[in-house]
This record gives sequence, structure tokens and C-alpha cells, in this order.
Amino acid sequence: MTKKTNAAILIIGNEILSGRTQDTNTSTLSLWLNSIGVRVQEVRIIPDIEDTIVNSVNSLRKIYDYVFTTGGIGPTHDDITAQSIAKAFNLDYEIHKEGYKILEKYYKPGEFNEGRQKMIWMPKNAKLLLNPTSGAPGFSVENVFCLPGVPSILKSMLGGLKNDIVGGEPILSHTINLRTVESEIANSLTKVQDNNKDVEIGSYPFFQAGKLGVSIVIRSEDQNKINICNSQILDFVKEKKIELVSKN
Amino acid sequence: MTKKTNAAILIIGNEILSGRTQDTNTSTLSLWLNSIGVRVQEVRIIPDIEDTIVNSVNSLRKIYDYVFTTGGIGPTHDDITAQSIAKAFNLDYEIHKEGYKILEKYYKPGEFNEGRQKMIWMPKNAKLLLNPTSGAPGFSVENVFCLPGVPSILKSMLGGLKNDIVGGEPILSHTINLRTVESEIANSLTKVQDNNKDVEIGSYPFFQAGKLGVSIVIRSEDQNKINICNSQILDFVKEKKIELVSKN
Repeated sequence: MTKKTNAAILIIGNEILSGRTQDTNTSTLSLWLNSIGVRVQEVRIIPDIEDTIVNSVNSLRKIYDYVFTTGGIGPTHDDITAQSIAKAFNLDYEIHKEGYKILEKYYKPGEFNEGRQKMIWMPKNAKLLLNPTSGAPGFSVENVFCLPGVPSILKSMLGGLKNDIVGGEPILSHTINLRTVESEIANSLTKVQDNNKDVEIGSYPFFQAGKLGVSIVIRSEDQNKINICNSQILDFVKEKKIELVSKN
Repeated sequence: MTKKTNAAILIIGNEILSGRTQDTNTSTLSLWLNSIGVRVQEVRIIPDIEDTIVNSVNSLRKIYDYVFTTGGIGPTHDDITAQSIAKAFNLDYEIHKEGYKILEKYYKPGEFNEGRQKMIWMPKNAKLLLNPTSGAPGFSVENVFCLPGVPSILKSMLGGLKNDIVGGEPILSHTINLRTVESEIANSLTKVQDNNKDVEIGSYPFFQAGKLGVSIVIRSEDQNKINICNSQILDFVKEKKIELVSKN
């Protein structure tokens, strides 16, 4: 069996915890990580409090192969991710020379003010993560990757990250959408799961166009194993005369 | 100063971690909890693995006044929240008599099958949380409240929860939307934060209709303190001739 590479995501920001802002970075990062063979095993959303960031990073980076943080790397007083990561790794917090040069070029003469300079204060010897959208880079220290909170900027940086992450086999998935309710298929689905213990089978009710349905999601790194589960599920679907809405 | 009541949210479900499903329950729960004076201090998203659920619940319930779990209380094999909570509290996992009666009435004769009966297997003596949408109740044990993952069902259950939660003062907030970039206001905003240490001031860049802007969010239980920050911020906004887009 191939090694399963895993990751945690640490969403830093009071605006997510207060409910004001809907986090979408978890879904973006998870889908992208799945595609390169990294399973996200835990997400934590925490406030802009230095001790909490330090403790969370230090706990997660020891458990998981990779940790991705989002948020808190902008120029304002509530952006404290970089200084917290420096503290977590016991590194100096200082101006990153290469980062300074990037932003010096990015801004017009006279516009690279103190606020903007804060964005290249980083843990000593941090590795820069380039930002093709708005100049200010993210950074990584060992297995911790610090990305911005703004979803469009975060998305634009993922392509550049690919060489830094060593994943396993991509995680494949197959979805079967049925016109039924979970309780009608629960026993049959349990049998399929019991017969295929190393495949992840999830069952999710949905409401669509006023009708109830269930999505069955089969996940594995092995397409053959997905196919076997799929055919076992389609067998009981046929037997029970359940309507198959779609599969993909 | 009034006691600050706090909470953690534990989102249970592989479908959120895989990125397949976008969690919206965090935002729903956080906004509702804020309105009754409970601050969400941490959110964790974890997979459908019993040990992980047990450990997370046992760690969070000791730290926070309330823990809200979402997901994993349906009828299928991957719904293991109730059995995990029983294990976390070292309680028997058994048919809940009152819950049984509710579902027996809810379903037509003959429809209360084994799959549906699984939904009222709960930790012994759990308190039921009524579900006006789809019958199957959630439950609470001590300070841990277990809610379903389907957002519309979860929402419909919040009204019934209000009597179970003792909150503090509601958390008030005021937002000022500016046509500027964060680095232009960073220093001035830091001064306002330094002058008003017990008020939470957040700064969030936004893109709207192709234009950049910054939302400043002021949060406190004390409307007077919000007003003071607001006027100090509007002072520097005027001085810097920054366009005020809106405030609310």
C-alpha cells in the first residue's frame, strides 16, 4: 500500500468564527490537495490570538505531513500569522530580503509604505510562496504553508505550490445519486461497506428541486475498488427498484 | 464585566474534509450564537472516525461552555456521532424511549424500519432536541449539543434550543466599508485599536463590482464602545479623504 499523505488546514480569523464571512478556502484547498494525493484530515478555525495560533500550529505540524494556514498575512494590526509562526518555530521575525525586493518592484515609487512593508516581515529564512495576483507573497517554514485569506488570491497561488508538496496517489471518487431516502438503503449500504473495508463510502441526503435524494460517494486511490463497490451498490439499487438520478 | 460565554463547533463529516460539500453550518450557528451572547472560539472539522470524535468532544467540552456538533446522526453506516458521544461520556448507547415514540408517530405504520430506528439510538438519558422538519431529533448530553448536518434541518432546530443555552450580552457589531486598501489605513487603525483594547476591530479587504475596498468591523457587547471606535475611525477616514462606501 502506498503511503497516505495527509494535511491539516488552519483557518485564522475572527471574521469566520463570528459567522460574518463564509469560509470557502477549506473546500478549495481540500479539492486541490485531493487531486495531488493529499488527504485533509482536520480543519481548525481559530481567532486572531497569538497564543492560540502558536499552540495550534505546533500541535498540528507534529501530527500531519502538511499544515496550511489561511488568513492573517495582510498589513493591518489583526494580521498576526507571520509573527505567530516565527514564535511557533522559535525563529526571528524580520524583514525578508527577497520579499522586500519583490514588493519594491511591485509598487510604484513612494507607494511601498510602512503598512505594505509589514507584509514582508516573516520568520527568518522563510521560503516565499509567490502571489501572482496582488504581489505580497505567502511563505512556508518546514511543513507549514501560510496562505492569504482572500479566496481569489489563495486560488491563484496553488499552482505555484505544487512543487513543494509531495502527495501520494490522487484520491478518486465516484458519486451515485438516487431518488430515495437514507433509511431505505442503510442496511444494504452497510453490507457493501463491510465487504469493502478499505474504501470510504459516504451517504448524504439532498433536497433538489423539491425532491429528496441520497448521494452515495465512493472514495479510494484504486479505481478497481471503486468499480467493485459501484457495481455492488447498483445491484441493490436495481433489486430495490430505486430510481438512479445520475452518476459521475 | 459580564462573564463571556463561549462555545466550540465540531463539524463531523468526510464530505466537508474532502471539499465535496461546502460547510455552511459554522456561519449559521455562529451568527445565531452571537445573537444570544455566545462567542464561538474554535471550530474543528473532523472525519467520521470514532476515536477522533471521542477525543475531540472530550477535549472541547472541557475547554468551552458549550460544544455543538453537526453531522453524523442519520441512519447510515457512516453516521456514528451518537455512539461516539456515548463513548466520550462513558454512557450506554441504547434506544431512547421518548425518541422512539416521536418517530413511531412521525412515520406511517410499517415505515419505521430498522434504518430509521438507528436514529433514536442515543447515549443513555440524552436530552432530545426537537426537529420540526424531518422528525428525527438531535440530542444533548451535559454541555454537548448534537445537531444534524443538513443545513435546512439544523436551522429549523435552533429556535427550540434557545432555552437550553445561557448566553451573556449579545455581541454587537458595526461595519464601515471604505474605498481604500488596507495598507493606507493600517497605521491609523492600529492606533484606534491601541486606544480601545477591549473592542475587537477587524479589517477585511473585499472586491466588489471590480473595485477594491476594505470592511472595518467593530465588535463589542457595549454599544458605547463601538460608537467611540466608530467616531475615531471616521475621523481618520475624513482626514485621509477616503471614500465611505457604506456603514451598517
